[in-house]
Amino acid sequence: MILVNGQTDIQLSPTDRGFQYGDGLFETLYVNQAGIEFWHEHLQRLSEGCQRLGLKPPNESLLFNESRRLIDNSTTPAVLKILISRSGAGRGYRPPVDHQVTRIVSLHPLALYPDHWQTEGVRVRICSTLASINPSLAGIKHINRLEQVLARTEWGDERIAEGLMFDALGRLIEGTMTNVFLVKGGELYTPNIAHAGVLGVMRRVLIDAAARLDIAVHVGDIDQEQLAQADEVLLTNSIIGVWLVKSVDEFSYSLGQIGQQLQLEVGRIRQKQTLALS
Amino acid sequence: MILVNGQTDIQLSPTDRGFQYGDGLFETLYVNQAGIEFWHEHLQRLSEGCQRLGLKPPNESLLFNESRRLIDNSTTPAVLKILISRSGAGRGYRPPVDHQVTRIVSLHPLALYPDHWQTEGVRVRICSTLASINPSLAGIKHINRLEQVLARTEWGDERIAEGLMFDALGRLIEGTMTNVFLVKGGELYTPNIAHAGVLGVMRRVLIDAAARLDIAVHVGDIDQEQLAQADEVLLTNSIIGVWLVKSVDEFSYSLGQIGQQLQLEVGRIRQKQTLALS
Repeated sequence: MILVNGQTDIQLSPTDRGFQYGDGLFETLYVNQAGIEFWHEHLQRLSEGCQRLGLKPPNESLLFNESRRLIDNSTTPAVLKILISRSGAGRGYRPPVDHQVTRIVSLHPLALYPDHWQTEGVRVRICSTLASINPSLAGIKHINRLEQVLARTEWGDERIAEGLMFDALGRLIEGTMTNVFLVKGGELYTPNIAHAGVLGVMRRVLIDAAARLDIAVHVGDIDQEQLAQADEVLLTNSIIGVWLVKSVDEFSYSLGQIGQQLQLEVGRIRQKQTLALS
Repeated sequence: MILVNGQTDIQLSPTDRGFQYGDGLFETLYVNQAGIEFWHEHLQRLSEGCQRLGLKPPNESLLFNESRRLIDNSTTPAVLKILISRSGAGRGYRPPVDHQVTRIVSLHPLALYPDHWQTEGVRVRICSTLASINPSLAGIKHINRLEQVLARTEWGDERIAEGLMFDALGRLIEGTMTNVFLVKGGELYTPNIAHAGVLGVMRRVLIDAAARLDIAVHVGDIDQEQLAQADEVLLTNSIIGVWLVKSVDEFSYSLGQIGQQLQLEVGRIRQKQTLALS
């Protein structure tokens, strides 16, 4: 279930700059019976990433057609992954002036999380692997993900759903595969993604949901002390939507009203933002 | 001139984790008529990188035989590149317990730098793209090189040999493809590579050369002010050896005695540390 530049029978050139240097971007989209969730939002972020990297933006309708080809032959729900990279032949970091873009579209089964994680909350840990501080790379979903790989190798306990990552200055950044929100005094707090981390599509959706529910959102630096003193902790990504956190290492949190309201509201928004396949 | 797991006729799987997540490492070695320079030092760093990433270390004699296959059929001098990555199939940052390692060995022509760069010094600029702060990734030569790619896109002027990168805290880290040394008052200063940057093999060789010549070396934080006030600036990597810097943006430097002595001494060490192919 993988298309390389639209073809099922070809492999990748080992000279591809995505492989040699991590010179590329990706998106992970949720596919349900009705279609693909937040297609435009994901393609918008991909397009912004292309601008940051000086990559030719991919043709959106071509990507949609290729995505549809995979989904037609499969069961839903599923995860659609789109990866684009700069192809290349020579050695050296400088990209060729006239580059081609490699386009990988693949469909994957949903990760098998226990059902009760959605309803009863999840257990989370703090990773010792740090998130890189680099404003030049912050925000976009590039394929330099070694720090997430290292953070994710830190635990094998299947009962732990996610690991939180701080940066070298002690700022909470994100989970290995999620964005993070705190609730304190009825208001939301989430890390600023200007120096490190990924601007998740579902992070944006949660912020929109908060606005609809008239819950104030503060974007800024968060340290370990503020995490410890939060009333509630929430995690978001495009596949899980919203997870309510019941513990981070030895700290316990209540599954409070704010988180539950936001989880419901995000669910409602997800249903409306699906691009039909036909 | 590229071998994928020892074969010339196969391509890379797009599911390889090196491509999907940058889950891999590389080495760039100089090949001369007599053989491969600093083979053991490069393989040592590769092996340390494997330990950091939890990758199975590659079989050294297999890599040597594959390297020899490519070099036998080519002209020297040349650049040998070895890249190893974690192969994979599923989605998700967590590496499979029983992973295979992908092994790419390739031979490349030397970059065509003007001859006078070696003898008369090079012009250098300061990049606005920053080096990532991440102690978990510092030192090893992993394939997450997007920041170097972005830094290298900042200039097109062929007369500029290299760009220097700082981190978000204003510390000088390295060039896009080199390590950097300052000379001040007859002593050497070079950035600490504990928080960002790559521990270059030629950086180690230059430090050894300095010890032989009884030149003190200080490893620590260096800011833009110290760079501006240096007497001499040197750059190192495994291909170029040592470049003396004649300017960084508007600042000029003399090609002083210390740099020239070190350049000669490094040249002598290079000639002795070559592994013959037969």
